[in-house]
Amino acid sequence: MRLSAKSLLALFGVGCICGLVGDHAHVATSTTRYLDVGGVPTIWGSPLFFIVTVGVATALIGEIRVRLGPSRPGTLEEGLAGIASVLAIYLLTALLSDESTSTVTAFIACLAILVAVRFRDGRWSLVLGAAAAVIGPIAEIVQHRAGVFEYASNVDGLADVAPWLVPLYFAFGVVASRLGGILATRPSSAEGE
Amino acid sequence: MRLSAKSLLALFGVGCICGLVGDHAHVATSTTRYLDVGGVPTIWGSPLFFIVTVGVATALIGEIRVRLGPSRPGTLEEGLAGIASVLAIYLLTALLSDESTSTVTAFIACLAILVAVRFRDGRWSLVLGAAAAVIGPIAEIVQHRAGVFEYASNVDGLADVAPWLVPLYFAFGVVASRLGGILATRPSSAEGE
Amino acid sequence: MRLSAKSLLALFGVGCICGLVGDHAHVATSTTRYLDVGGVPTIWGSPLFFIVTVGVATALIGEIRVRLGPSRPGTLEEGLAGIASVLAIYLLTALLSDESTSTVTAFIACLAILVAVRFRDGRWSLVLGAAAAVIGPIAEIVQHRAGVFEYASNVDGLADVAPWLVPLYFAFGVVASRLGGILATRPSSAEGE
Repeated sequence: MRLSAKSLLALFGVGCICGLVGDHAHVATSTTRYLDVGGVPTIWGSPLFFIVTVGVATALIGEIRVRLGPSRPGTLEEGLAGIASVLAIYLLTALLSDESTSTVTAFIACLAILVAVRFRDGRWSLVLGAAAAVIGPIAEIVQHRAGVFEYASNVDGLADVAPWLVPLYFAFGVVASRLGGILATRPSSAEGE
Repeated sequence: MRLSAKSLLALFGVGCICGLVGDHAHVATSTTRYLDVGGVPTIWGSPLFFIVTVGVATALIGEIRVRLGPSRPGTLEEGLAGIASVLAIYLLTALLSDESTSTVTAFIACLAILVAVRFRDGRWSLVLGAAAAVIGPIAEIVQHRAGVFEYASNVDGLADVAPWLVPLYFAFGVVASRLGGILATRPSSAEGE
Repeated sequence: MRLSAKSLLALFGVGCICGLVGDHAHVATSTTRYLDVGGVPTIWGSPLFFIVTVGVATALIGEIRVRLGPSRPGTLEEGLAGIASVLAIYLLTALLSDESTSTVTAFIACLAILVAVRFRDGRWSLVLGAAAAVIGPIAEIVQHRAGVFEYASNVDGLADVAPWLVPLYFAFGVVASRLGGILATRPSSAEGE
């Protein structure tokens, strides 16, 4: 199976919007601070490359998921609930950034488990969630070392980035997988041939 | 279909209790402050007219919903979950009132979407949710202009009231609609004739 | 019905881990402070007897539940969601300990209702939840009087312990009951004879 161009574009758009809103929240709450974005234009304080990266990652995970094996069908409403769940968790990391980071990390991990139980789509969605939980924080560590941004001093305990990035990216990977599966199995869709 | 007097009274009572608890939380957290309630008696710092208004609005939305078209059956437990969900969101707006208001508003919007996906009862419940999301904040703006109360200075960005009132009232409207539908379709009920 | 030794051990282990993580969060956020643990070894600031007590209570409630009557079958995933839900609520009481305690208590009560609607397993699980909601806070009051620990001054409104312990222990009792029922009714299990 493969996703149609329209579905890939939808995933890209969803990822861009959630990246924009979530990153703005991190900046607005001083959870993160951009230092040198290399002259790239910013929207609401968030550099374009971050927003685009989240969009591309969302589409990529969705496409990989549907290539790996069949998905169970789902509704767009389920997909909407998945998006709202992950964005809510993302925003919570901003709202709780002043609190005890070990407590927040354990709390976000509990929410990520609830998301995985609700939205997982076979073992592959968990594998992709785990991959996102590894690659996402590493990509942020690399950008931090390159001087692009920094986390507030109380939330930089994982090689200078926030430890709760791990469960946050995991939830993101699981839901992006599920979105791919939902789009690929829609009855009205011309995809999946 | 129409609701029985007993069901209308139940909705009125649920609305009054949630209005009382939620408004008390807003006062206790200094999210809102009453200035001049015109001599009306208050309970837990909340004037009687506010509590009664929420009760009447709950019953009214439930009644309008069941007149607009058939509902899918549901259990009282589902209704209880809907009530707990909206009251929890209401209380979160109090608990988070010191945080970045744009972030809180986006977060409450995510929770409202989750409530709508879980508890919506046909398109009419979404229409009534949207109506509540417009009428509720306007009613608060009018009362603010009349000098009845004020929001804290960091959460008055929507014409002097809180922007997260919009998703909060939306969730309230959707769940009040659902409660009407559940009460109207109960098998043991003499309603619906 | 009775639980196997393996299931009892699993419940004990789950309770120990959640007690350890949750209690550490209470200590890390200064929600509670240990004063005199009588020389008992501590892990992450939490005395061994507390961790073991939560483990024993979890196994005990699960065992009592399955002896009281038949359970509906469930999956380990459902059990995992129950554990994550209760631990998330536990951690929220730590994260929100600086906020208005009446508001937090009402909020935790709403979440406990959502947990009960989702995970209850017959009336007995609610009875056991109610028993935990009474016995748990009393046990904490007794320990407080014995000089073992104290709650922060803003969250000691229930005879010197936190009022939100009541809905928190209720949710714990409901989910521990459900875990017992899930383990007792697993098809692959040799239990239930």
